[in-house]
Amino acid sequence: MIPRDHPRYSSLVTREHLAECARTGIVSWEGLISHGRGEAFDYLLGETTSASARRAARTAAAMLSTARHPVISVNGNTAALAAREIAGLQRASGALVEVNLFHRTPERVAQIETLLRNAGADVFSGEAERLLPLSHDRAWCRREGMYSADVVLVPLEDGDRCGVLVSMGKKVIAVDLNPLSRTAKTATLTIVDEVTRALPLIADACGALSDGECSTLVATLDNCVFLKEAQEEMAARLYHALD
Amino acid sequence: MIPRDHPRYSSLVTREHLAECARTGIVSWEGLISHGRGEAFDYLLGETTSASARRAARTAAAMLSTARHPVISVNGNTAALAAREIAGLQRASGALVEVNLFHRTPERVAQIETLLRNAGADVFSGEAERLLPLSHDRAWCRREGMYSADVVLVPLEDGDRCGVLVSMGKKVIAVDLNPLSRTAKTATLTIVDEVTRALPLIADACGALSDGECSTLVATLDNCVFLKEAQEEMAARLYHALD
Repeated sequence: MIPRDHPRYSSLVTREHLAECARTGIVSWEGLISHGRGEAFDYLLGETTSASARRAARTAAAMLSTARHPVISVNGNTAALAAREIAGLQRASGALVEVNLFHRTPERVAQIETLLRNAGADVFSGEAERLLPLSHDRAWCRREGMYSADVVLVPLEDGDRCGVLVSMGKKVIAVDLNPLSRTAKTATLTIVDEVTRALPLIADACGALSDGECSTLVATLDNCVFLKEAQEEMAARLYHALD
Repeated sequence: MIPRDHPRYSSLVTREHLAECARTGIVSWEGLISHGRGEAFDYLLGETTSASARRAARTAAAMLSTARHPVISVNGNTAALAAREIAGLQRASGALVEVNLFHRTPERVAQIETLLRNAGADVFSGEAERLLPLSHDRAWCRREGMYSADVVLVPLEDGDRCGVLVSMGKKVIAVDLNPLSRTAKTATLTIVDEVTRALPLIADACGALSDGECSTLVATLDNCVFLKEAQEEMAARLYHALD
């Protein structure tokens, strides 16, 4: 048991939950390491959503709202951390929810789909095919799902797949705490924020934006600005930590 | 298999090795998450040893060389990542090597002791007792080992135990990639560097320092300076990453 008065209580509870999800197979070993990387960058963000990330979340909502065929791609870490938030964003945006795994087995896919359904998501399932030009299991997706999407939201994605989706002409929205990652730099839009904070912000904005606001946000999108602002935020916290 | 031309090849190989060590029980689930945090901060260091960390490593060598009863405390991650480097530092410094685990079972202790011995370390073992004023398993250590030490090197330590060792009057040397962590701030000396880079630097300096140099390094030690320099290093890399 983690003592309630531990200065890092909520972070430790999340870690224990992820370790439990690793025991049941929902989260991969590599997923645990990747969560740690996220923790470090979130620490540098002060574990709060910056004004810049709020604007990025509104822009994401505009992209999803104006998409022809939006898809939310879910992996093990996202399902373990934010199944309810995924379901909420699906209701708000009308996007398809599809499970795509780096370490793919049919059992893991089924396990994660069940977790998402139990949290209230309507999961797009069915036959997957090797449709993406990528080595190993990341190539798998569904023809009527991610393959046909014009806008894909990929929380906690790996850099290669993000790059492939962009090169296929899709608009990719990443949620990534590391503003220096290949995913963050490659995506059309990167929300530098923790996934359980970012997804509800996107969902809220989906209902609140007018058509005009959506057009403006999409037309003026410059991902470099968002990344730069996140880096400045983190650098400032590092500089002032000992003051 | 990880492709050799992957831009993050060596980092991926280390991750796979740690995942393998988690499968065999040497590394805990939480140890994987903690490795991820380290990775993120090392990324911000440019994955190289700074001039400041080099000075910190020399200071650590001075502390170990002038200690009455120096002990190197080893946990699962340290053993998995740096068993050979621990053995090398033991030869250079004459310190005791003792296994101390956050998630302690007799089997895990034995497994890690075997790994260290196979790497050439002379492990101080024997009966452990609950000697540190800490809740749960971190309280365990050996009376003639860490409990009697005047200088303790704790690579990759948790903040609570570091604080307790300091409050018992011991000089604590931490190796921690996060200059903002409680461990980093609490230790007598923090080397902000990756453990397999830092340990050989300490070992090299152990043989190279004169008595006079040791005294000067110990007398002028100011950990705040080392932490500040590490933070500035990381902040500068964040600021300039998009230039």
